[in-house]
Formats: sequence, C-alpha cells, structure tokens
Amino acid sequence: MDKIIVPRKLQGFWELSPEKEIVFEEMIDKIKSVFKKHCFLPLDTPVMELSEILLAKSGGDVDKEIYRFVKGSTDACLRYDFTVPLARYVAMNENTLNFPFKRYQIGKNYRGERPQKGRRREFYQCDADVVGDGKLSLANDAECIKLYEDIFSVLELDAEVEISSRKTLFGIVKALGYENMFSDIAIILDKMDKLGEKEIGVMLKELQVKEEACNKLVSYAKLRGGKEVLDKALLLCEEQTFVEGVNELKQVCEYLEAMGGEKYIINFGIIRGHNYYTGTVFEAFLKGKRNLGAIGAGGRYDELASYFSSRHLPGVGMSIGISRLFDILESEGLISESEAITTVAIIPLGNTLNESLGLCAKMQKEGVKAEVFAEEKSFKSKMKDAGRRNIPYVAILGEDEVKANKVTIKNMNTSEQQTLSYDEALKIVR
Amino acid sequence: MDKIIVPRKLQGFWELSPEKEIVFEEMIDKIKSVFKKHCFLPLDTPVMELSEILLAKSGGDVDKEIYRFVKGSTDACLRYDFTVPLARYVAMNENTLNFPFKRYQIGKNYRGERPQKGRRREFYQCDADVVGDGKLSLANDAECIKLYEDIFSVLELDAEVEISSRKTLFGIVKALGYENMFSDIAIILDKMDKLGEKEIGVMLKELQVKEEACNKLVSYAKLRGGKEVLDKALLLCEEQTFVEGVNELKQVCEYLEAMGGEKYIINFGIIRGHNYYTGTVFEAFLKGKRNLGAIGAGGRYDELASYFSSRHLPGVGMSIGISRLFDILESEGLISESEAITTVAIIPLGNTLNESLGLCAKMQKEGVKAEVFAEEKSFKSKMKDAGRRNIPYVAILGEDEVKANKVTIKNMNTSEQQTLSYDEALKIVR
Repeated sequence: MDKIIVPRKLQGFWELSPEKEIVFEEMIDKIKSVFKKHCFLPLDTPVMELSEILLAKSGGDVDKEIYRFVKGSTDACLRYDFTVPLARYVAMNENTLNFPFKRYQIGKNYRGERPQKGRRREFYQCDADVVGDGKLSLANDAECIKLYEDIFSVLELDAEVEISSRKTLFGIVKALGYENMFSDIAIILDKMDKLGEKEIGVMLKELQVKEEACNKLVSYAKLRGGKEVLDKALLLCEEQTFVEGVNELKQVCEYLEAMGGEKYIINFGIIRGHNYYTGTVFEAFLKGKRNLGAIGAGGRYDELASYFSSRHLPGVGMSIGISRLFDILESEGLISESEAITTVAIIPLGNTLNESLGLCAKMQKEGVKAEVFAEEKSFKSKMKDAGRRNIPYVAILGEDEVKANKVTIKNMNTSEQQTLSYDEALKIVR
Repeated sequence: MDKIIVPRKLQGFWELSPEKEIVFEEMIDKIKSVFKKHCFLPLDTPVMELSEILLAKSGGDVDKEIYRFVKGSTDACLRYDFTVPLARYVAMNENTLNFPFKRYQIGKNYRGERPQKGRRREFYQCDADVVGDGKLSLANDAECIKLYEDIFSVLELDAEVEISSRKTLFGIVKALGYENMFSDIAIILDKMDKLGEKEIGVMLKELQVKEEACNKLVSYAKLRGGKEVLDKALLLCEEQTFVEGVNELKQVCEYLEAMGGEKYIINFGIIRGHNYYTGTVFEAFLKGKRNLGAIGAGGRYDELASYFSSRHLPGVGMSIGISRLFDILESEGLISESEAITTVAIIPLGNTLNESLGLCAKMQKEGVKAEVFAEEKSFKSKMKDAGRRNIPYVAILGEDEVKANKVTIKNMNTSEQQTLSYDEALKIVR
C-alpha cells in the first residue's frame, strides 16, 4: 500500500467502545421492556424520508441542520426526529391501524449542528406516542408521563417530570390581550430558566407588553409545585381556555395518581417551543441536576398528520434523548464499563486445542459465555490477557487433564484453583 | 391546511408493520444471543463515514450504488457494509484493543440499487468478525462457521454452510498457468450455479483457456461433499498453495467437528467475488432452497485495515443478510405475524376509569402486558376491538366490581368469564 489514510470518524457521530456499548444496549433493552409492558408496538421507519415529506411543515425549505441529498430522481433527507415519520406512517396506514395506535421507536436521528458537548450530529432517541382517531382520552397523557416514571425506575434514576399546558399559556396570553404575540411571548418565557425573571421582564417590555401583564406572565411561569398549584392558578386568570387547561391538568394528575404515579410536579414555566403542542406539555429532569437540561420532553398535539391526511388524528407523546442521557450519566460518573462479557477463558496447554474447542462448545450450549484462547501465544501471556480483561474464570486444559477427562478451573478473583470433571466445572462457572 | 401531500416512503427502504417488526426483532435478539454466547463484543459505528474513508479502496471513485452527500466541509457516504467501518475502527483503536478482537454488528446498510425482489436500498445485516494482531488461528474460521450453525438452531432453520478456499482456487489456476487471469477465471467459475457447466466451459474458452485446463477447473468447482472431498481434491493438483489450502480446510473441519459442528459441506464451487478474501470462504444456504441464493457469506482475509494502518491485521468474518432472510422466510410462509402484544385489555364499565388505570398499573408491575381501553366508545365496540386484535383476556371493571374489589375476567378464546379478586385475576392472566 502506498498511502495510509488516517482513520477517523465523522465528528459528532455516535460510537461507543464495546464495553460502553454493552451498558448502553442494556439501557435500551430496559427502556424497551417498559414500552412493551405498556403495550406499545415497535415501529422502525427508514433513516431517510423523501424531502417533500420531511420538509412538509416548512413548505420545502431546508433547515441548515438537516442532511439532505439528491441521487438521481430521489430527493431525500436523514430524519431529525420520529414525529414526521410517525405522521407519514399513520397517514399511509390510517385505514388499517387499530386506534388508539400506541407505538414506540428507538433509533438514530440526525442534525447537522456544530458538534459540542451535549449536541451530537448522530444520536439515539426513544419516542412513545399514542395517536387517536378523532378523539383521545387524557388518560393517554397520564400514561406518557407514567412511562417516564417506569423508565426512571428500571434505569434507577432519581428524576421527575414537570407538567404544564399550552392551553393555560395561551389562555393567559389571550386574557391579557396579547393573543397575536403568542409565539413571541412563549419563546421569551421559555428562557426563564436560563435568563432569570428580571431579564425576561426586560424582554417582554421590549415587545411592548405592559408592566402589569409582564408581572402576571412572570407570576404564571413561576407557579410550580404539587397539584395544589392548579387551584392557585385559577386565582390568576378566569379566561375560558385557561380554565379548560387547568381542568385538563387536574384530570391528568388524577389519572396519573390512579396509576400510582408520584414522580411529577406542576411547573407552568415549562413552555415547549414547538408550536404543534396544543395541550399537556412536560419535560423530564434528573433531580438536583436541572441545570443539565431536560433529558426528555413531550406533550399533546391536536393534529399529527394534517400535512398528509384530512383525518383528525390527535396524539400525545413522550421522548427521551438517550444518547444525551447516557452522556450526562457518564460525565456524572454514573456509568461504569460493563463487566467482562466472557465468563470463562479456556486456555489449551500442550496439544489440546481440539478438546478445548469441544469444552467451549459444551459450555456455550449450557449458556455459559466461554471462549478459547486459541492463538499461538505463551500460556503466561494468555493468563495475563485473561486478567487484564477481568475474565472471572480461566479453564486450563492440559494433556494430563484431557486424559483424565478433567479441567483445571481458576477463579481469577480468589486465585483458587481446582481440577474437576467437566460437569463439576460447568456448575462452578454457571 | 391547503394541500395534502400524499404520504409515502422511499422505495426499497425497510419498514415493517409493528406485528411483523415484533417477529423481526425477536429474530435479531436470538442472533444476538448467539454472538454473546460466543463472547463477541457489540459495536455500533455511525451510519455515515467520511467519503475518504469509505471510498479508500476505490481511490475515491464513487460507486453509483453509494449514497454520498456533501454538507459544508463534510463529504460523507452512507455505509454499504460493516467491513470498512470495522477496518476504520480497528485502525483507530489498534493500540488499545484486545486482540483477537471479536466483534459483532447488527444494523442497517445502504445501497442505492434499483429496488427489486430481494434487493433493498436499506437493509439489515449482521456481521461477526475476529481480527488478529499479526496472526490468527484457523480455529476462528471454524468458529465463524459454527456461529451460522448456532444461529440456524436458535432460528429453527434447516440450513447449512458450504465451505471452500481462495487458496485452492488460486493454486489450481496457477498450476494451470493462468495466474495472470485469476480474477477473470474466478468471476466465471462463480457463475457455475447460475449458468451451468457447459456455459462456463464456453466462457473459459473465450478467455483462451485450453480445453484440458477448462475441464480441470470445472472438475475442481464441481467437487462437493463431506470432508472426504478434500482427499479427492489432492488428486487433482499438487501445486503448493493448493495443497496448503486443502490442508487448511482439513484443519478448519477438524476444529469445527471438535466444536460439534455438523451442518456444513465442502463445495469448491463457492468462489466469493470479493478479492480481499485470501483463505477459507463460505456461504450459507437454506436446505432445498439453494435457488434462492445464499443467506449469508464470509471468509478469511489477510489484511483488514491496510488502507488505514501499517499493522498486519488478518481477520475472518461471517455475515447474514437478515432483511433478505426475513423476506425469504416470509415469502415461503415461514413468518407469521406476532401474537397480540397485549395480554389483557381492561375495559371500564361506567365511571371506573381511575380504578381501571390502577388495576392496569398493578398488572404491569407484575409483568403483565395490560392496557386500558380508555376512549369514549361503547362497551360493545371495545369488546370487538379486543377480539379483532386477538387479545387473549379482557378484564371488565364495572361499578359493582369496584365496590366489591373484584374484576370480571373473560378468556376470549373460550368465552369463559369469572368474577375474581384482583389477586386471583392476576394469577390467571400471568
């Protein structure tokens, strides 16, 4: 070979060491088990969608964060979330699906952002959504929030969900007479965590929002606590949509409690930027680590697939940025590399490779993760390899052992060593 | 909404119905369990690689089948297999990996071919490879073949592996004096299955291969059977590389038998087009369905990462086209849709939604896949939904039942119906 190309991967793309990959996959499997228990169906849509589909919302404008490419007559983009593909899928199959359609999807999404801490270009996400046909019970909003709690439980995370409503936000903005500035006000209030109350006040005033209204909006966004907060909210505003929003939240809390949910609070400071949310909205945070940002978010939307279908398909969904969550847990020292995947390293001593392979197959058949150190290396260096890889047992198969139908098992933690029959050895390593 | 965009997905891209997705994921989980038992580590490389890396072999020429795109200063391609990403990964981490490095990868690959039966643009593949540092025992070739056999077993497939060698092929071509036409001859012999012996003879003659040599090559490629075929092969040619290849195959068979392997034959008609194979090569076929083509293939290569590293890294790997395998099994009627994911549908009757949600959470906590039919629909239509979805149990929670702390469980198969305490109900559905 004349020239060696420096091996490197794309910046910001996801790639773990196998030892960490094992831990990450265990995390995914645990999350899956929760979705399955809640009877959500798996969906695995393509990584690419036609640009016309993926960019329907923006009228075909390509966001600079989207990976788009044209190949022959195909104009396609890498998906940036699971919502548009879900809408496309539901619209394509609306006549055969059972509604409410409960699906989860776990996979990679793509955003061509400048890679930085916490922002990857390729990242894993998991979503669960319930899509109704015409109507959808608020029990589903509660279930999506309960999914978080069950996931916190299987992942042993100390976390909680903060719940709010787009209806209350819209209601209070309307009552104050700023309905036409709703989006702008929402964007500003969304920054309260980052910028603080004072700065938010300044920004609202710059929008020509009157001082009294500013104060009211800030008071609203600061309301936070147990469900008693909902009654306090009713003192703040009597507007119809606002009251409807509060009553919906009361109903969601009631359902959630019926399900045994308790890891949640009401926080009207949760705004959710996306304009497609129309009711309940929520974000999940690690307790005491709110400054790290939300690890998941979701909410209720009135129209899932309005770009692709004339059918009224309301939905509610929850999402977790699992790559992000993994990064956070890792940087907090809460992820340790997996234990050795190999339980027994079988080391042939002398001319016993065939017998070692046979013993290995026998152990594997019994469910033991066994492998033969078959390479031409010294016994000593093989023992060292087993030690460095933290393999708990070594099975040494010398010619004498083979003759006696025995094997020497060494416990690498205690250095204890015994020569045993194959069956006795199996019992120890199993 | 003014205009509705017809919802559609990219042609040739992978998307199963959730009912089939469940079956497909079970298939993947079973394959994973085999890799894990054999102590292979998981690797999950990015879907995209830098074009310079992915196209190293072709000197940067873009094959028309590859999805390539340029975004800002990034020139990247979607991966078309797992081998180049493995080479890149090993070269990047060669100083920290434990060799032999045994890794598996299961995921999507991309080829922009014209979609047709059996040829998708997005498809799942699984690969397992062992990469050595400098040298690599033939026991690893045997293990890769044994992986197939163990996978056939967990997937309950009647299949076998056909084994050959690039060394014997090279040896016989060299002995006949056509060393400089090796690639052309290999390409022709590879078509024997499709075109038949006679046509192959004609094509070889067109290459100016003499009749006697043609006959010898055809005799060679027709050699097929148990390992006794290896002794027959030695009568055909005495060339050094040829004999070395036969002896290696004998060794691989010996190791394979030591592992208990029996689902294999020798078939010198297995050629493997890729020039990077340098020793053992193999393909896996469903028995009696050889006409459907190989469901997997692999072999030994001398240099994994020569484009990215000066280190000598020989390897051996096996691969299964799992999307293709799934398609074949489906078209052969060997895939049935999953049973209902939901075990119990809880139907509130009257004002009992809270209690239904509570019962559901209780059942889920005990590992039962339960869901509440919470929508505002008639009891009758909910019973019908449960029936259409083949849900085995319905739990009916009326106001009387709630008062008595009981629930009515209906077995949808037998139509048997009992009113029971929650704990008794749990016992039945669990």
